[in-house]
Amino acid sequence: MSEYRSLSRGELSELLAELKDKFTHYREKGLSLDMSRGKPGGEQLNTTDKLLDALGSESRKLTENGFDVRNYGLPDGIPECKRLFSGLLGVPAENIIVCGNSSLNLMFDYISQCMTHGTGGCEPWIKQGNVKFACPVPGYDRHFKVLEYFGIEMINVPMTAEGPDMDVLEELIKDGSVKGMFCVPKYSNPEGITYSDKTVERIAAMKPAARDFRIIWDNAYIVHDIYDEGDTLSEIFAQCKKYGSEDMVIEVVSSSKITYPGAGVAAIAASNANIAEIKKRLSVQTIGHDKVNQLRHVLFLKDADGIAKHMEIQAEHLRPRFALVLQKFENEFSGKGIAEWTKPKGGYFINLVVPDGCASRVVALCRHAGVTLTDAGAAFPYGKDPNDSNIRIAPSYPSLDELSAAMEVLCVCVELAAVEKLLSE
Amino acid sequence: MSEYRSLSRGELSELLAELKDKFTHYREKGLSLDMSRGKPGGEQLNTTDKLLDALGSESRKLTENGFDVRNYGLPDGIPECKRLFSGLLGVPAENIIVCGNSSLNLMFDYISQCMTHGTGGCEPWIKQGNVKFACPVPGYDRHFKVLEYFGIEMINVPMTAEGPDMDVLEELIKDGSVKGMFCVPKYSNPEGITYSDKTVERIAAMKPAARDFRIIWDNAYIVHDIYDEGDTLSEIFAQCKKYGSEDMVIEVVSSSKITYPGAGVAAIAASNANIAEIKKRLSVQTIGHDKVNQLRHVLFLKDADGIAKHMEIQAEHLRPRFALVLQKFENEFSGKGIAEWTKPKGGYFINLVVPDGCASRVVALCRHAGVTLTDAGAAFPYGKDPNDSNIRIAPSYPSLDELSAAMEVLCVCVELAAVEKLLSE
Repeated sequence: MSEYRSLSRGELSELLAELKDKFTHYREKGLSLDMSRGKPGGEQLNTTDKLLDALGSESRKLTENGFDVRNYGLPDGIPECKRLFSGLLGVPAENIIVCGNSSLNLMFDYISQCMTHGTGGCEPWIKQGNVKFACPVPGYDRHFKVLEYFGIEMINVPMTAEGPDMDVLEELIKDGSVKGMFCVPKYSNPEGITYSDKTVERIAAMKPAARDFRIIWDNAYIVHDIYDEGDTLSEIFAQCKKYGSEDMVIEVVSSSKITYPGAGVAAIAASNANIAEIKKRLSVQTIGHDKVNQLRHVLFLKDADGIAKHMEIQAEHLRPRFALVLQKFENEFSGKGIAEWTKPKGGYFINLVVPDGCASRVVALCRHAGVTLTDAGAAFPYGKDPNDSNIRIAPSYPSLDELSAAMEVLCVCVELAAVEKLLSE
Repeated sequence: MSEYRSLSRGELSELLAELKDKFTHYREKGLSLDMSRGKPGGEQLNTTDKLLDALGSESRKLTENGFDVRNYGLPDGIPECKRLFSGLLGVPAENIIVCGNSSLNLMFDYISQCMTHGTGGCEPWIKQGNVKFACPVPGYDRHFKVLEYFGIEMINVPMTAEGPDMDVLEELIKDGSVKGMFCVPKYSNPEGITYSDKTVERIAAMKPAARDFRIIWDNAYIVHDIYDEGDTLSEIFAQCKKYGSEDMVIEVVSSSKITYPGAGVAAIAASNANIAEIKKRLSVQTIGHDKVNQLRHVLFLKDADGIAKHMEIQAEHLRPRFALVLQKFENEFSGKGIAEWTKPKGGYFINLVVPDGCASRVVALCRHAGVTLTDAGAAFPYGKDPNDSNIRIAPSYPSLDELSAAMEVLCVCVELAAVEKLLSE
């Protein structure tokens, strides 16, 4: 198979006609498949259903220190659930606050807190004029939406195979109005890249001009390996300790993709100083999160080993989906020079890079044929992919049959858009 | 029994000696009783435990519109839970958002939203300079803490037997920097006063100078009657409709004292315009609240009738506690001219008014004798009771025996402080 760019206009035109026929064929099937979000499928959720029986009317209602989980109190979470997350994160339990079900909520509230009250003894961000965040791209659209909501200016930092381009980042933080960075350091959304030890250490060693610079370390896929051998991420607070930069990092994690996205437990880990600031707010914001669900999770997951075992079951559901997508890409794109993609060992996404200017066309074509992908550009601040080349593939939700059908459509659409582009040059 | 103020100094001194002996006797008992917060006791919580079995691994997981509660999505709540709250509040389901477990969290987040983003097309409050709230007093300490956290100036508005003094309030809102008011309109915290129909209508008819004036209508005790016959509260949005003031009211409610304080479901009700503003924020703040717990509540409580039946069981636990306190006050204070108290038909509190300048002394004496009451002044902004005369009694948590013991101590401490005061005059 020769690369498409070496084909003649005549050959390309012939190919385009073939692809259009294929596309019409798929469109006429009247598919309706949603691959837009990284969420588990129904069968995968079923594997967690014993969680619902873990705390019944006859179960214990008291925490290990004698506190009734049904009543008000403990805004920082129950001790056994703190310990569960401590085992997961490798961070002392006293530096962890266990909250409600959503880590996004924790991140939003933290940024809101910095906006109205500041951090580290500095002025509230809202009173500091134009405030900026460094944004490794491609990244997680919901992080960008939080920043956009608060009017925080977003500056792209390119991702490398080892994490954010540290040369760019280190330069950027010399600007005191750059106040932070959101990132997904393990199995990054959408590329599935795990930050290398060197990157983690360079991040910990940063000396930002802003004393109130905060990295939101969104460890969403901390135990979300797909294969027996997964990536390992250096523990950020241990690295920070070397450089006295513990106050720079706010880590969040949740059980959304361990148990249920709709009813998990989320936690925040931070330095003593940051935990004190967060507790000060939390003690005003709530009398306590859902502690029954915290205890339910402890009874179901038990400990870090229990989590690891449960994640093996989750991986069984994800592995064939990832394999199907990768195999399809290999079969359809290999040698054509029209697509590149990542091969992550975990997480929820595969990132597909199509020729510049083609991503939004591919997503639009797929939608016409009944396959909803994440919007082109979603993985970039303000929804603007500067190259219009990035497509996030979320293979977890559909059944294998649906996924296979969706991939057929996607691959044809990518080829179609690529050939159209070659013909227009 | 003659009023204490008509006693001679000699008689008072004798009385003081007697009371000090009694106090010493109680102190030596080494009690340790907590009556500081309005929370249910363990036995009362037990009556809700079937909630924990209502949604097990074999139960349905889909909402009535086919949405899987275990997965991401529906940041405004599941339809059947919206309908449950619609039946409770008498507000259309489309004007209700069902969230996590804490209504305090909803109020905090709403104020935060007004601070950073404003409401009704007006500037964010944080950018409007000094912003003020009207505060009916005595009131709920956690409302005041939210305002204090955001640096909102609090202005006392006296309560009457029908609700806030409307003459004072109507005058106050002529100031455009007065942006709102928190209130508990039914069985108010701490007095147990239900706003009269006339008060509710006058509130709805208000024309504040500030276009972005917002009343946080904290309907915490909406179905929390203690006796067969309870108070009735006029439905605020129906009144607002008459005056076109629907945008002025944000209502919150929760099942914290219907099911579990630590694992209930909370909801917010508002006008179309306000719901749109809140949804805009929520769609950035979370991918969805705990929908499993929402469905669990629907399966357990079923509908407004189901809630009413469950509340009768709750009332059985509260009734003897309220009766005990009221009887004790009647027995110990009657005719002495040293205390007044409310006799609410619902809610979680009885309010005790002791002679001016005595409340903090009473609370301190009680603490010495092992009985923890809500801090004196807690029911006032900045914790400052201008008369130092108000004590909030929360009889729900202790057992009847404990409550009886605590009341013995409290009554002696009130007498002691009152006599001390008379002797010092």
